[in-house]
Amino acid sequence: MTGEFAALGRLLERLAPPAAGEVGAGDDAAVLAGGVVVAVDPVVEGVHFLRSLTSLADAGWKALARNVSDVAAMGAEPWCCVASVVGADEGDLAHLYDGLLAAASHWACPVVGGDLAAGPALVLTVTALGRLPTGAAPLLRSTARPGDGLYVSAPLGWGAAGLRALRAGTASASPAEAWYARPEPSVEVAMEARSAGATAAIDISDGLSQDLDHLAVASGVGLRLDDVPVAAGATLEDALHGGDEYHLAFSCPDRRAGQAAVPGIRIGTCTTDPGERTFRGAALPVGGGWEHSL
Amino acid sequence: MTGEFAALGRLLERLAPPAAGEVGAGDDAAVLAGGVVVAVDPVVEGVHFLRSLTSLADAGWKALARNVSDVAAMGAEPWCCVASVVGADEGDLAHLYDGLLAAASHWACPVVGGDLAAGPALVLTVTALGRLPTGAAPLLRSTARPGDGLYVSAPLGWGAAGLRALRAGTASASPAEAWYARPEPSVEVAMEARSAGATAAIDISDGLSQDLDHLAVASGVGLRLDDVPVAAGATLEDALHGGDEYHLAFSCPDRRAGQAAVPGIRIGTCTTDPGERTFRGAALPVGGGWEHSL
Repeated sequence: MTGEFAALGRLLERLAPPAAGEVGAGDDAAVLAGGVVVAVDPVVEGVHFLRSLTSLADAGWKALARNVSDVAAMGAEPWCCVASVVGADEGDLAHLYDGLLAAASHWACPVVGGDLAAGPALVLTVTALGRLPTGAAPLLRSTARPGDGLYVSAPLGWGAAGLRALRAGTASASPAEAWYARPEPSVEVAMEARSAGATAAIDISDGLSQDLDHLAVASGVGLRLDDVPVAAGATLEDALHGGDEYHLAFSCPDRRAGQAAVPGIRIGTCTTDPGERTFRGAALPVGGGWEHSL
Repeated sequence: MTGEFAALGRLLERLAPPAAGEVGAGDDAAVLAGGVVVAVDPVVEGVHFLRSLTSLADAGWKALARNVSDVAAMGAEPWCCVASVVGADEGDLAHLYDGLLAAASHWACPVVGGDLAAGPALVLTVTALGRLPTGAAPLLRSTARPGDGLYVSAPLGWGAAGLRALRAGTASASPAEAWYARPEPSVEVAMEARSAGATAAIDISDGLSQDLDHLAVASGVGLRLDDVPVAAGATLEDALHGGDEYHLAFSCPDRRAGQAAVPGIRIGTCTTDPGERTFRGAALPVGGGWEHSL
């Protein structure tokens, strides 16, 4: 994890700065002229999923879900996607597409193109485009302000709890396992949060504590968490540090008269001390030892 | 090759039809509302390149060049790209980005985002976006008409000749090898062809005979080739059937008064017999045995 973030950071320094009004690499997705949003995420067999735990159809679903989650975290509506598949035989390909096309239909985010290639490992890379409503500003990671409330889109922990249940092979068809197989990014909450005046947002893919830390560092604010909602069957540890959530964390000032209600669940406050990371008054360990691998 | 095309064909049948005015999968790239064009192409170590013959920097260059070529073949200007890298250590990554960023700068097609993941094989997947000028129609594969002239953007054969020279290890710094290492898609010719009234276009990636066959099948026309320009150091076989060309083939009616000159080199004519595939009066073997692998 640390190595991946450090390597990404060094890469980001090499990229050309974005044009005025655009957002380059380093957020959940890039934002281009005209409010076009672009996200890309690879799904690698043996790294992001094992066939013994995840069907290829579910892997195809998740490949698009990861990108839809990134697009939504910018405040954009999913638009369409392209899919590049390496190392799949035709049977594998049909199964991957079963889930990919189900997800594309579910989010009205059609597969408009793609490519196939031979290869020594199965890699499905989906690139999704989104669109911001005309005139709407994207939800960045870097624009939370001290005093803003901190929110999540739903109770957390099913990503970690679902994977644990699958590995143990005990539970069957628990909600956590079902969520792990076919997660549902918080697209509606993201749109509502943008309308309600959210100041910053991030997709929870590496775990709440880790991703909120990214948001806090980018925004120069501290984090004071009061409570975190735990999904049924998950632990507080799952909710605080587990990855593969597909939910949204965002900051939003208190509701003012005439504004839309803030969606989601309030978990704390952005503070002025950029070093603060607390949960119920105690230090919050960022990451908590979660490893984003199988 | 045949297997790949057949598998792609069966996949295409499963995709939702494109919205009115848009172009879905099956052409060089997809065309979305607002003239946004999207292409994706993976580059896999051991399939598309070998480190013994191609530096990682050159592989990075080619990963974007393949996509720029696809975008240009739709008549669109390159806009920006995202890059997903699987299975590269940080040294590999830096070298890949040396070439990728050089290409991004060369075509003013900046890298605006991407992702990194572990994996058992090195896979670099670039997704490029392009833009059509306001009101311009894309150049499809399927709209060539009988009587149109057939053109290529440049003399052909360096893709195959460069690879052969590299494998033999004899020639050094020949133009064909230099082209193989850092090919230059025919972006300017593509824009000029669109302005000159080109009716259809395709990126020559699988070899002229194979890609013209795709265009002819999609358009329902025949192909009568009179002559094909051969790049210095290449053979006629390379020019007719070799892949990795990064050049453009297109159809265009004869120039009318007041129209821009047709760019490129005329090689033949689209005919009314959809079964015709001839070169200098003899049957043209489609594909010619070219294998799109190392």
